[in-house]
Amino acid sequence: MNQTLVGIVIGSDSDLPVMRTAMETLSHFDVGYEVKVLSAHRTLQRTIDYAHGAESRGLKVIIAGAGGAAHLAGLIAAETTLPVIGVPLEASPLQGWDALLSTVQMPAGVPVATVAVGKAGACNSALLAVQILSLQEPSLREKLREFREDLARQVEEKSQKVERELPPSS
Amino acid sequence: MNQTLVGIVIGSDSDLPVMRTAMETLSHFDVGYEVKVLSAHRTLQRTIDYAHGAESRGLKVIIAGAGGAAHLAGLIAAETTLPVIGVPLEASPLQGWDALLSTVQMPAGVPVATVAVGKAGACNSALLAVQILSLQEPSLREKLREFREDLARQVEEKSQKVERELPPSS
Amino acid sequence: MNQTLVGIVIGSDSDLPVMRTAMETLSHFDVGYEVKVLSAHRTLQRTIDYAHGAESRGLKVIIAGAGGAAHLAGLIAAETTLPVIGVPLEASPLQGWDALLSTVQMPAGVPVATVAVGKAGACNSALLAVQILSLQEPSLREKLREFREDLARQVEEKSQKVERELPPSS
Amino acid sequence: MNQTLVGIVIGSDSDLPVMRTAMETLSHFDVGYEVKVLSAHRTLQRTIDYAHGAESRGLKVIIAGAGGAAHLAGLIAAETTLPVIGVPLEASPLQGWDALLSTVQMPAGVPVATVAVGKAGACNSALLAVQILSLQEPSLREKLREFREDLARQVEEKSQKVERELPPSS
Amino acid sequence: MNQTLVGIVIGSDSDLPVMRTAMETLSHFDVGYEVKVLSAHRTLQRTIDYAHGAESRGLKVIIAGAGGAAHLAGLIAAETTLPVIGVPLEASPLQGWDALLSTVQMPAGVPVATVAVGKAGACNSALLAVQILSLQEPSLREKLREFREDLARQVEEKSQKVERELPPSS
Amino acid sequence: MNQTLVGIVIGSDSDLPVMRTAMETLSHFDVGYEVKVLSAHRTLQRTIDYAHGAESRGLKVIIAGAGGAAHLAGLIAAETTLPVIGVPLEASPLQGWDALLSTVQMPAGVPVATVAVGKAGACNSALLAVQILSLQEPSLREKLREFREDLARQVEEKSQKVERELPPSS
Amino acid sequence: MNQTLVGIVIGSDSDLPVMRTAMETLSHFDVGYEVKVLSAHRTLQRTIDYAHGAESRGLKVIIAGAGGAAHLAGLIAAETTLPVIGVPLEASPLQGWDALLSTVQMPAGVPVATVAVGKAGACNSALLAVQILSLQEPSLREKLREFREDLARQVEEKSQKVERELPPSS
Amino acid sequence: MNQTLVGIVIGSDSDLPVMRTAMETLSHFDVGYEVKVLSAHRTLQRTIDYAHGAESRGLKVIIAGAGGAAHLAGLIAAETTLPVIGVPLEASPLQGWDALLSTVQMPAGVPVATVAVGKAGACNSALLAVQILSLQEPSLREKLREFREDLARQVEEKSQKVERELPPSS
Repeated sequence: MNQTLVGIVIGSDSDLPVMRTAMETLSHFDVGYEVKVLSAHRTLQRTIDYAHGAESRGLKVIIAGAGGAAHLAGLIAAETTLPVIGVPLEASPLQGWDALLSTVQMPAGVPVATVAVGKAGACNSALLAVQILSLQEPSLREKLREFREDLARQVEEKSQKVERELPPSS
Repeated sequence: MNQTLVGIVIGSDSDLPVMRTAMETLSHFDVGYEVKVLSAHRTLQRTIDYAHGAESRGLKVIIAGAGGAAHLAGLIAAETTLPVIGVPLEASPLQGWDALLSTVQMPAGVPVATVAVGKAGACNSALLAVQILSLQEPSLREKLREFREDLARQVEEKSQKVERELPPSS
Repeated sequence: MNQTLVGIVIGSDSDLPVMRTAMETLSHFDVGYEVKVLSAHRTLQRTIDYAHGAESRGLKVIIAGAGGAAHLAGLIAAETTLPVIGVPLEASPLQGWDALLSTVQMPAGVPVATVAVGKAGACNSALLAVQILSLQEPSLREKLREFREDLARQVEEKSQKVERELPPSS
Repeated sequence: MNQTLVGIVIGSDSDLPVMRTAMETLSHFDVGYEVKVLSAHRTLQRTIDYAHGAESRGLKVIIAGAGGAAHLAGLIAAETTLPVIGVPLEASPLQGWDALLSTVQMPAGVPVATVAVGKAGACNSALLAVQILSLQEPSLREKLREFREDLARQVEEKSQKVERELPPSS
Repeated sequence: MNQTLVGIVIGSDSDLPVMRTAMETLSHFDVGYEVKVLSAHRTLQRTIDYAHGAESRGLKVIIAGAGGAAHLAGLIAAETTLPVIGVPLEASPLQGWDALLSTVQMPAGVPVATVAVGKAGACNSALLAVQILSLQEPSLREKLREFREDLARQVEEKSQKVERELPPSS
Repeated sequence: MNQTLVGIVIGSDSDLPVMRTAMETLSHFDVGYEVKVLSAHRTLQRTIDYAHGAESRGLKVIIAGAGGAAHLAGLIAAETTLPVIGVPLEASPLQGWDALLSTVQMPAGVPVATVAVGKAGACNSALLAVQILSLQEPSLREKLREFREDLARQVEEKSQKVERELPPSS
Repeated sequence: MNQTLVGIVIGSDSDLPVMRTAMETLSHFDVGYEVKVLSAHRTLQRTIDYAHGAESRGLKVIIAGAGGAAHLAGLIAAETTLPVIGVPLEASPLQGWDALLSTVQMPAGVPVATVAVGKAGACNSALLAVQILSLQEPSLREKLREFREDLARQVEEKSQKVERELPPSS
Repeated sequence: MNQTLVGIVIGSDSDLPVMRTAMETLSHFDVGYEVKVLSAHRTLQRTIDYAHGAESRGLKVIIAGAGGAAHLAGLIAAETTLPVIGVPLEASPLQGWDALLSTVQMPAGVPVATVAVGKAGACNSALLAVQILSLQEPSLREKLREFREDLARQVEEKSQKVERELPPSS
């Protein structure tokens, strides 16, 4: 699918190391994405413009990762009807609790699809985007099934490795 | 759309009063849904069967609401590649903190799109489902825009009412 | 001062009962205020317009009260250089923790002057506004001193009442 | 007892360093155990199969260690009537709070015997298993008494060492 | 089984309404139990005596329910090698968080099998006791299976009732 | 002891119902006390004067109960070398967590002897005061022993009542 | 403005590294400030004297940074009618939660304008002070606008850099 | 005072580095102390014996430091009428929250004088003990005053150093 279908928006370039997992996961599925640094508080108008233009530019899903009082995902969600996925990041001494609550506790009317704090959430934001896209694109559904089988296989291999190292003790 | 596109799954019939908001919201958008009581712990096999059959039965999105150690959304998400939306409910003395963390903190590989604890989350789970469905169905996108405009109008009317009651004090 | 100097913005008319304390306190100081219902998520553009026009309309301080993922104060703060005071309100099962963190944990660059959750915070938001205004208006400073003396007197009277009812027990 | 009586299940091989304490403790009591890597989300069917086969394969107790939205113990508990012990592990920025609540807050009907977060819990999961097994095996009860006496002796020796180094100061 | 196999210990008679669920559940399984009010802090010696005598009096499992800084389960666990199940109760303004942490975070060496805060935990403490007892008593295992099937049937009936009231909407 | 030995200070007369337990407990031990309403923030100077005069007026221990950002106990502790006992009270939507942390987390140099949030803490503040006073007054030590025996007896009586109502079930 | 308009007060010199951000930010705006180490508990009288003298010495705003049971900002706020900004610092194992609640949860009557925990809050305390001062000093308002534009420009440049490194993937 | 007046009890020798602050502080005041390693769970009887013998051996105050489900202080408090001071220590992934709640939330009847988590609390436990002892020993009161003056002087010197390095900026 040589189209940019997912917009990844991060609140600061310091969020890049964690959010890179989202990009790698989308690449794995050959889903086109773009990356922007946008700030709900420092570049509000650009963020709104981005949200407004997203649909007409062909984006289908937006992923927003931010820390602290993380308003980025909620703000974008307020200005588009595309599904918006929020990734709470650990960016203050409060260890992500602030980002989690600021992202997930949206008022009735404007949902943000929130995933786990940090790296696991970054990965899952991409998978959720692929799952949404696969509703229209059966080939993605197939790849998702393979991905899940791969995951299962990896767990199984790890189990076998552990079982070899730690055979039943009796 | 006279098709059942959304499956709403609740962990207990005591969750119905809160989750009814999701149903009313889907009805508002004329999106077909079905409701099941399923328990990740008490009826695991039925829950898995439900997840396995969801896609072939034509469902596009699954909404799961549960409280306490809320595994329902995560379990279904593990067994389908459809997008799964989790609504954490307040069902223990810990006021929904347990349901929130059990739902949102999924490991990399199996995302749950988590929304707010309780009623606001129930409403938003339906809206998020509609937003996902609208990627394929332009008429839903139009209705979403109207819904948002209605919301805005309601806020504006409330503001005017408040401003009439509380005119500038000086 | 027959001028509207303080803008009070609430996220929902259901916040009015708690936020009324702010209005009564401003009235006590004869500080002109206006009240609007604005939503960071449902009426974003109106909120931004409000923030943009605040200074030229003569406002000096903005007070914003909101619950849940409370972005209202932060959003306004991003769009004006007037001081913005945030009042976190209890509006979800998480009892104000979500509103507190969403309001106070703003990123470097855009401060929100956050006060206590709920009624005490609503009262203090008005007092803080008056303290800020009093930097330019010595008569307000005088009234603040009297207000503090009144507070002290009330505590003292309560103490005397308690001491009469509960005289030293020995 | 040259029989495999305890099944230790971990959600990821990265949990091995902490969970190894459980294995060492079982070895200390000569209680046979086996180790598997199983994931409630990535290898659900294998996990269920494991739970279903546990009793007939002679297992008496299952220990499950997992982090994040830790559903592993609860899932196994739903599919066996053997006692299941859950060890919440620290595997996300939320420092084990997510794993603790996801493991302990099980709904009525399906208990998980939850122990402390992390290493202390891993050790105690094994001891709890031994205590359960000792109901049928008096020799284990005897060993438990010795183990407790050893623990007490160690505390006492540490106290004596500390008392020598820090004699009464007066 | 006309023997008293389970000792239920509560920290205060005000804990009885919640803990009664444990008793009813044991009765359902025809498992003999006894109930005592014992306090880790007010009747320490009696509590220790109870723990010391438990095994020789034929008890197999002890269930202890307590609130606040809940030391009751941990204290008994320190003085017997029988499995001890702790039920954290809501008995202070901190809503059970204090009881949960005081019960579950036991140091290495002395496990408490902790279940959920409040009523769900009370029910599950009894079920866990039955699961432990069933290792020696196959008839209990059979009853547990029936109990689980009953639970599943109840969920199914509730689902059917809900499905009748809320048929697929499309 | 017909002397006023304990000063009870409350931050607001609304704290009286909870703090009354402290007074009743001191009365039970015939320990003379006085009660004042003082506010760390509204009547700072009077609070400091109270702290400064406490020792010379014969007080031996000060008990301070306050809610929210509870600075009362810490402030008094900073201005006297008498032992100061802090009772955190539930006076905001945050249910006493704010008062607990504001009272107990004092910096090195100025201790506050903190007891439980709410009614249990109010009672215990008085008992702690009596325990401190009993170091000089053997008759109080005797009464404390009786008080403890009474407590134990009450627990025992409750146990007997419960045991009569709920005889061993087998 | 060659006048000292802002007083920065820190509870300990160990708070200097974090609070230095506040000083640098004020310097950026050419706003004169002074720095004092004052302790609410160890140097109460000096702290009160400082608060009492602040206005007559020409200060307009006071910034107070402290950790643990952080009473410094609240204490100063009680003794001046100048606006007081509180910066909660991470100075105990509880990671700033104690400082946040002790600073923000002030009782009605004495507000503290609280900003984020740690470095972001230190920066924002200075910006909030500048915003307050700019009500009287239009040149500061102008500088604030430039500062905001700079912030926006930095975000934009970071975005461009990220976009160059991570061009749309399709 | 060449008498052992304070008993310091720690739950594990790994607590020694933090608790050493308590010892150094008592030494500073020439107050005799002894140190024991005792465990509420591993050496319960020795802990009880210690509590029972404390008064007759001349101890006046007991300080107990422990982490996790910290029952040590509460247990000793239950078995002596001497004042018991509890120091919650950080000894699990939950960063001291467990120790704080387990120590401070004692039920009515058995108080523990709780101080801050970790090093600040260790220091303050000793100061609180000295404050209690000074009720009988005027020379200690004098030393406490000097100690407080020293603290104040140190803060003042640090302030002067900071003020020299960071002179008023205008």
